[in-house]
Amino acid sequence: MLQSKLFTKTRREPPSDEVSKNAQLLIRAGYIHKEMAGVYSYLPLGLRVLNNICNVIREEMNAIGGQEMILTALQDRALWEKTNRWSDEVVDNWFKTKLKNDTELGLGFTHEEELTNLMKDHINSFRDLPIYAYQIQTKFRNESRAKSGIIRGREFLMKDLYSFSRDEEEHKVFYEKCKKAYKNIFKRVGIGEKTYVTSASGGVFSKYSDEFQTVTDAGEDMIYICNKCKSAINKEIKLENANCSECGSSDFREEKAVEVGNIFSLGTRFSEAFNLKYVDKNGENKLVFMGSYGIGPGRLMGTIVEVLADDRGIIWPKEVAPFTAHLIELKSDNKKVNATAKKIYQDLQKQGVQVLYDDRQDKQAGEKFAEADLIGIPYRLVISEKTLAKNSVELKERSKSEAKLVKIKQLTKAFK
Amino acid sequence: MLQSKLFTKTRREPPSDEVSKNAQLLIRAGYIHKEMAGVYSYLPLGLRVLNNICNVIREEMNAIGGQEMILTALQDRALWEKTNRWSDEVVDNWFKTKLKNDTELGLGFTHEEELTNLMKDHINSFRDLPIYAYQIQTKFRNESRAKSGIIRGREFLMKDLYSFSRDEEEHKVFYEKCKKAYKNIFKRVGIGEKTYVTSASGGVFSKYSDEFQTVTDAGEDMIYICNKCKSAINKEIKLENANCSECGSSDFREEKAVEVGNIFSLGTRFSEAFNLKYVDKNGENKLVFMGSYGIGPGRLMGTIVEVLADDRGIIWPKEVAPFTAHLIELKSDNKKVNATAKKIYQDLQKQGVQVLYDDRQDKQAGEKFAEADLIGIPYRLVISEKTLAKNSVELKERSKSEAKLVKIKQLTKAFK
Repeated sequence: MLQSKLFTKTRREPPSDEVSKNAQLLIRAGYIHKEMAGVYSYLPLGLRVLNNICNVIREEMNAIGGQEMILTALQDRALWEKTNRWSDEVVDNWFKTKLKNDTELGLGFTHEEELTNLMKDHINSFRDLPIYAYQIQTKFRNESRAKSGIIRGREFLMKDLYSFSRDEEEHKVFYEKCKKAYKNIFKRVGIGEKTYVTSASGGVFSKYSDEFQTVTDAGEDMIYICNKCKSAINKEIKLENANCSECGSSDFREEKAVEVGNIFSLGTRFSEAFNLKYVDKNGENKLVFMGSYGIGPGRLMGTIVEVLADDRGIIWPKEVAPFTAHLIELKSDNKKVNATAKKIYQDLQKQGVQVLYDDRQDKQAGEKFAEADLIGIPYRLVISEKTLAKNSVELKERSKSEAKLVKIKQLTKAFK
Repeated sequence: MLQSKLFTKTRREPPSDEVSKNAQLLIRAGYIHKEMAGVYSYLPLGLRVLNNICNVIREEMNAIGGQEMILTALQDRALWEKTNRWSDEVVDNWFKTKLKNDTELGLGFTHEEELTNLMKDHINSFRDLPIYAYQIQTKFRNESRAKSGIIRGREFLMKDLYSFSRDEEEHKVFYEKCKKAYKNIFKRVGIGEKTYVTSASGGVFSKYSDEFQTVTDAGEDMIYICNKCKSAINKEIKLENANCSECGSSDFREEKAVEVGNIFSLGTRFSEAFNLKYVDKNGENKLVFMGSYGIGPGRLMGTIVEVLADDRGIIWPKEVAPFTAHLIELKSDNKKVNATAKKIYQDLQKQGVQVLYDDRQDKQAGEKFAEADLIGIPYRLVISEKTLAKNSVELKERSKSEAKLVKIKQLTKAFK
């Protein structure tokens, strides 16, 4: 893309009411726009990152048999009364609205009820199971405070997969598969090393669950990492067990962390409420055994910024970056500089490399470099009269300090 | 995809409360699920079609310089008060909700206010213009009646593009470009011949606008098509002018139609309300001139079903079909039938052909054919002991009645 055409502008200062690092940087660099606390629009660069994250998640969910669909935001009260989750006393973060005839509706903060009900049309026999259905869809949660940028939103994207299995045994096989898929996701988006599978209590649904917690000062949770075996437990579990459940050690370190994913067994809580049964091999009716698996792509994006950014701006890992290369042309009277920059831009794109080309003629080098650092594209390519004299461009990785000259002819190789 | 794994089932009867043909067929074939009147979930097959439609729209919008972003559903009251569109007396289809502190919020039924306000951060100089920003995002409209299936939803996807131009002259150039892009879209999704550019009044925003109206009995609008020049006008314009504005003829035919798209000038109504100005070449402050361009991908999907379906079910045009080919294996004791079907499935996919492979061993031929007709994939391929004896498969287009035998070796050619 030509940067002269990109409608967003970078800015030196974030909005004065924005306290989180992720939103400050993402707003300054033109990725997002704050509509109100916890509600952000995604501008062209931001949508590209969000889509890349969604595609990583999609690939990993499809690889373990996930089938993508999309449920609705508007929720029918009757479904939520079946599980006793309609009342604001039980669920404290509902957004509610009304039809013209005064019928109350909810805005989905999760989708177990809607999907369990829907599955009654499609599950009859043991032959229909297991089913792994997921969506990447907008959730609404009426948070009383929302000060963590896109890490905790009132309106945000969520990938939620729900598993429908014949029994707990079949369920557990998928649960473990999904745990591995989640590890792949966090590795691919560049925060694998900072992300810990963290044993947690299962809340109202099951005894235990697994959270995926990424260590960062921006975290709202506290986790305890075993110094011996690197497994982690959350606060509630720590209060129950003084020792690591994996290796028995009592040597923990305490870290602030963001919950970037969680997976848990739902058991038959929802299938019971909706009478979601199947006929097994012996002709008997049995309740479907369910599980739930969530990741927030926007939260993940915010966490990546928190974990990887430096003083100068954002640093995107390759798989999520809005572009792979940021080609910067420095102003020159020598027309060959511009002509060569254009050719490199086209050649790289032909090779499948996504390029943001800073073709602006009214900006100085210093300003262009500062903006590039703020935007955080992994590879910066600079072409100037000086580099052209050596038939080269200067290549610098955003995460490293040293730059090197690369012959223009060998440039596409650098991206293989 | 293996049909044995697809979690949706087809059904012989639609839900008893569903009166529209599009929803009846789409529900029976497993594309959508009705949550309540005007609110539908998209199941795996349905999401594939919806995504294909969105991608056609995206390609055409990107080709004319559109930059994709995504705004929010939750709306800040203050923005809508600036244009006097907050009150339920002025806008009669708001869904409203509340934060915990009782601050009222709206659910976006359109996005002029939010985007015009956002653009104040990015538009300063004439050099920043024009800008064409669009999103494919969920709209909420509190319709009192919603009986047209996915053609009129209370929650539905909308592609809305907004243009920001220096003046009316620059605006008009883009307006005409977008009109052409819209024609491309309707042609590509298979309803070009039934869709008329229809002159309409511009409502509160401008004197005239253009609607894109697709002729079908399911239409809620009435249009008047000039029998001489094939241009069309809507009811309001017809009342004003007895003659065709293009050719002067008074020979019109009246048709029911669905409004699948509309484009109109907003002028400076929104830029005035938000004081969205730019500094022109002479250093003077000028109001930005705006336009608005909408298409509902779900409505388009419903309209395609209404226009093209026959007595046996849906007929998808190639560009929007969930799969290109429906490979049906008929039960046989000869294991070579199954082995060959599997090989064809893999080979076609390697060639980039998207295939739904009906590998189910517990269904009879008649049932498989009836389901295939209902689902409506453009090419049906049948492999049986009989076709295999001739080293062939039977190929039939969903929209045609005759079938022909194609040698298996030449099959991939048939999809080029």
